[in-house]
Amino acid sequence: MSARIAHPAFASKVMSAEDAAALIPPGASIGFSGFTGSGYPKEIPGALAKRIKAAHERGEEFTIKAFTGASTAPELDGVLADTGGMAFRTPYQSDPHLRAKINDGTTNYCDIHLSHLQKLINMGFFGKMDFAVIEATAITEHGEIIPSSSVGNNRTYLDIAEKVIIEVNSWQADDLYGLHDIYYGMDIKPRREPIPISSPGDIIGRPTFKVDPSKVVAIVETDDPDRNTPFKPLDDDSRAIAAHLLDFFDMEVKAGRMPPTLWPLQSGVGNIANAVLAGLMDAPYEHMTSYTEVIQDGMVQLIDAGKIDVASATAFSLSPDMAHHMNDHARDYHGKIILRPQDVSNHPEVIRRQFVIATNGMIEADIYGNVNSTHIMGTKMMNGVGGSGDFARNAGYSIFVSPSLAKGGDISAIVPMVSHTDHTEHDVMVIITEQGLADLRGLAPRQRVNVVIDNCAHPDYREALHEYYDRALKVSQGRGIHTPHDLGQAFSWHQRFLETGSMKEFKA
Amino acid sequence: MSARIAHPAFASKVMSAEDAAALIPPGASIGFSGFTGSGYPKEIPGALAKRIKAAHERGEEFTIKAFTGASTAPELDGVLADTGGMAFRTPYQSDPHLRAKINDGTTNYCDIHLSHLQKLINMGFFGKMDFAVIEATAITEHGEIIPSSSVGNNRTYLDIAEKVIIEVNSWQADDLYGLHDIYYGMDIKPRREPIPISSPGDIIGRPTFKVDPSKVVAIVETDDPDRNTPFKPLDDDSRAIAAHLLDFFDMEVKAGRMPPTLWPLQSGVGNIANAVLAGLMDAPYEHMTSYTEVIQDGMVQLIDAGKIDVASATAFSLSPDMAHHMNDHARDYHGKIILRPQDVSNHPEVIRRQFVIATNGMIEADIYGNVNSTHIMGTKMMNGVGGSGDFARNAGYSIFVSPSLAKGGDISAIVPMVSHTDHTEHDVMVIITEQGLADLRGLAPRQRVNVVIDNCAHPDYREALHEYYDRALKVSQGRGIHTPHDLGQAFSWHQRFLETGSMKEFKA
Ligand SMILES: CC(C)(COP(=O)(O)OP(=O)(O)OC[C@H]1O[C@@H](n2cnc3c(N)ncnc32)[C@H](O)[C@@H]1OP(=O)(O)O)[C@@H](O)C(=O)NCCC(=O)NCCS
Ligand SMILES: CC(C)(COP(=O)(O)OP(=O)(O)OC[C@H]1O[C@@H](n2cnc3c(N)ncnc32)[C@H](O)[C@@H]1OP(=O)(O)O)[C@@H](O)C(=O)NCCC(=O)NCCS
Repeated sequence: MSARIAHPAFASKVMSAEDAAALIPPGASIGFSGFTGSGYPKEIPGALAKRIKAAHERGEEFTIKAFTGASTAPELDGVLADTGGMAFRTPYQSDPHLRAKINDGTTNYCDIHLSHLQKLINMGFFGKMDFAVIEATAITEHGEIIPSSSVGNNRTYLDIAEKVIIEVNSWQADDLYGLHDIYYGMDIKPRREPIPISSPGDIIGRPTFKVDPSKVVAIVETDDPDRNTPFKPLDDDSRAIAAHLLDFFDMEVKAGRMPPTLWPLQSGVGNIANAVLAGLMDAPYEHMTSYTEVIQDGMVQLIDAGKIDVASATAFSLSPDMAHHMNDHARDYHGKIILRPQDVSNHPEVIRRQFVIATNGMIEADIYGNVNSTHIMGTKMMNGVGGSGDFARNAGYSIFVSPSLAKGGDISAIVPMVSHTDHTEHDVMVIITEQGLADLRGLAPRQRVNVVIDNCAHPDYREALHEYYDRALKVSQGRGIHTPHDLGQAFSWHQRFLETGSMKEFKA
Repeated sequence: MSARIAHPAFASKVMSAEDAAALIPPGASIGFSGFTGSGYPKEIPGALAKRIKAAHERGEEFTIKAFTGASTAPELDGVLADTGGMAFRTPYQSDPHLRAKINDGTTNYCDIHLSHLQKLINMGFFGKMDFAVIEATAITEHGEIIPSSSVGNNRTYLDIAEKVIIEVNSWQADDLYGLHDIYYGMDIKPRREPIPISSPGDIIGRPTFKVDPSKVVAIVETDDPDRNTPFKPLDDDSRAIAAHLLDFFDMEVKAGRMPPTLWPLQSGVGNIANAVLAGLMDAPYEHMTSYTEVIQDGMVQLIDAGKIDVASATAFSLSPDMAHHMNDHARDYHGKIILRPQDVSNHPEVIRRQFVIATNGMIEADIYGNVNSTHIMGTKMMNGVGGSGDFARNAGYSIFVSPSLAKGGDISAIVPMVSHTDHTEHDVMVIITEQGLADLRGLAPRQRVNVVIDNCAHPDYREALHEYYDRALKVSQGRGIHTPHDLGQAFSWHQRFLETGSMKEFKA
């Protein structure tokens, strides 16, 4: 047995992934660790998937309800979705196999704000939780759990689940110990205290999770890497978007509205976020900080370069190379990188207090500044709202970014009306595409229209957007033109795409 | 001069409303006091309106930008809107004359979350503020301002405006002194501290506003009542909605998910809110509290009956009789009623910490639980989002209520798709109409459909809603059925109303 299981009471619980999975009965509610491809259990989900498939082959029903931190990896969401037995899933995912099951009606997906998860579970709104299946770096001699590369919702699952299974993954660096800040002040009770974070570097909790040893029914030893994806090289759109954002920072700092350290940065994951981080490397800002969801490569590089003093998040989301580097040098990042439970990393209270600059991707925005982050053509779930609402609603600056076109130009990301609203016009300050930046602060709906179309829409679609607005203004006269719309035509662009494969009007 | 102006430095500033209004130049940005018909300046807006009209008659341009706490009264929004010179207005209104100007395109209305106002102003996003025009109960001998019947955004306007005009209203009871809690901890700076409220009764500030005397350019003495509207007698719909809500509380308390004191209550204004408060009078709950925006009659009665221990808000919104009572007995309510700045009464941080039960009105909800609070038929502004988003997003329980029908049955408040989204599917837990209650907690979109239609829609519209969903499910097959929609038909109900005067299908 690995030296990583230092507490004697847990020794007798060590077993194979198959034996552990065999403990999980049909119908179970399971809280899994895992957040953006890090810190998820590597072997039990696969073993459980085999068990579910075998039951299905025997003609038996076997479904589970799956809770996580956020998205996981093929070894968790992928394999379990493939069984067709994932009846319920919350709060966020981005797995192609699971996405298919959500969109064919197999999986009921409850898409919620990541910061809400702990509250909803602890208030009892999701019913009881049967199992927690949590990846750990190690178990201390006092029986405490050292987190691995993500914290997510693990504290809550360990607290609330009736039974606990732990995967101790020796691939995770021993030196992760000391990098986490596990705050235990989120109980549902009268007179709850404030979360005492005023700055990203504040440490308010402990380095480990507590767990009631009598609940632990299995320990599984693994030695498997997080499934990290390498970053694509930066493309022109991402670079252009990053440049517009950096110009905007510059303007705000010059105007005295933003300090020269900027406010703490939050950024979504992906290509554009990475381009922004790369851009910050050459920008004049020093002593920056980050209060965000995930630590990606660019963030680590900014810390290494001495540009960012400290970054707070709930998980790593690193390329394989950078994960390797982190595994070798985790100690060097103690106090510079802090991983917290997602109800703290994403808490409105703390985000609001710090005037966080929130930059997130979107699927589409409309001419009035409403944003769709989740639904393709109004009906198909892409990933989920994730933490975008936690940050956007409470940010000092709430910024949404996207290329102006999708699907080779057949889709405009700027539309007459969004086909699903995740972020309302009340929550969106700035929209950026590779075309430019729309600053919507202080504008009424009609004033936003030209700003959005002329700065952000792709030239191929600008005229048609202006035409929509002009017609909308005409038909809304007398009915109320606060927000002009031609409701019969508001989704005609989406309809055209669904019917012809392009939002463009092909005049015969 | 009234004894209410106790500080000598202010004596020389006393003048008529006309003279004070004459100080305000065309183009001025003005922060007015006033929140839901209380504590607004009574005479300067009228004098300013005359000045604007006279300028217009001379063929001169004269517009102003108006900021308030929330809605005010005919003496402010009404008279200024009527001039056609209110070019800009934020953050909330409910005045018929102003509504007309917003909807005919005269007034650019920036509809924002009430809790965001202070932040957006102090971050500099609305530009500089030229004047604060604030009603006060009195000015102390130390030159501090004793607030009147609302606090709203006054602290911010007094701090930030270049010039200050104060209306000292002797109609407001002297004994209001001591009822307010003005917190001065909301500066835009690194390392801001938490707002130290853990329970509605916590006092964290001071009883008065500070003001720099050198900025005060005029004091106007008034003796005018707040424009309070008497409550309508409770109707059957309101009573039915209240009964469903109280049954729900009962269920939650029995299940152990809510304490027998309930969580602190927030409720919107109006008929239904009043019916709920009336229902609580006979309900078994004791030692209740309230953390809300406005104190209305029912709240005072619950305090008098010893059912509510303490209520925190930012303003009174009382009937004339109750306002009279409050004016005579304000002292008795010290420590039981606390009026705070609206950035504290509505702050996500404090709402979230206290698991507030938020109950707000709506215009329409759709079969997936998205809520429209602001726009009639997608284009016409009704009032604004107000504090509904501050509360709904951060509440322990987020509840929306409405009669199932409007306009004599020609409009269904439950529609296929809302024509404007103010509260996303991620933010709505419970919908109630007189028909019943839809509990959406933990449900995926498709699971919500029957719950909403069968419990909340009026029977006249149920079949048509089911038909919409069935068709939507059919056309979304293969495209993604996470949230089935038939985008070409999603607004056909609204279109039919606009074209025929009814959402009902008249089969020839
Ligand atoms: C909105 C979101 C999906 C954009 O993702 P991204 O990776 O930055 O953007 P991409 O441009 O690569 O688009 C992703 C996919 O959506 C498609 N897409 C993007 N815009 C589209 C649109 N308007 N219509 C249809 N499809 C669109 C792309 O074509 C691509 O599809 P593919 O995977 O089949 O190639 C992503 O940011 C997200 O899930 N956001 C919500 C959660 C969130 O913001 N979390 C941040 C942390 S708090
Ligand atoms: C949504 C809101 C307008 C409902 O107001 P209310 O007074 O409770 O509801 P009523 O049923 O009396 O409706 C008000 C008007 O809207 C109309 N209306 C209501 N539902 C409608 C619908 N679905 N379509 C068209 N009109 C509708 C009513 O007919 C009525 O019109 P009228 O004034 O011409 O008679 C109101 O709650 C609001 O402004 N909410 C947003 C702000 C908020 O929630 N603040 C709470 C404090 S935090």
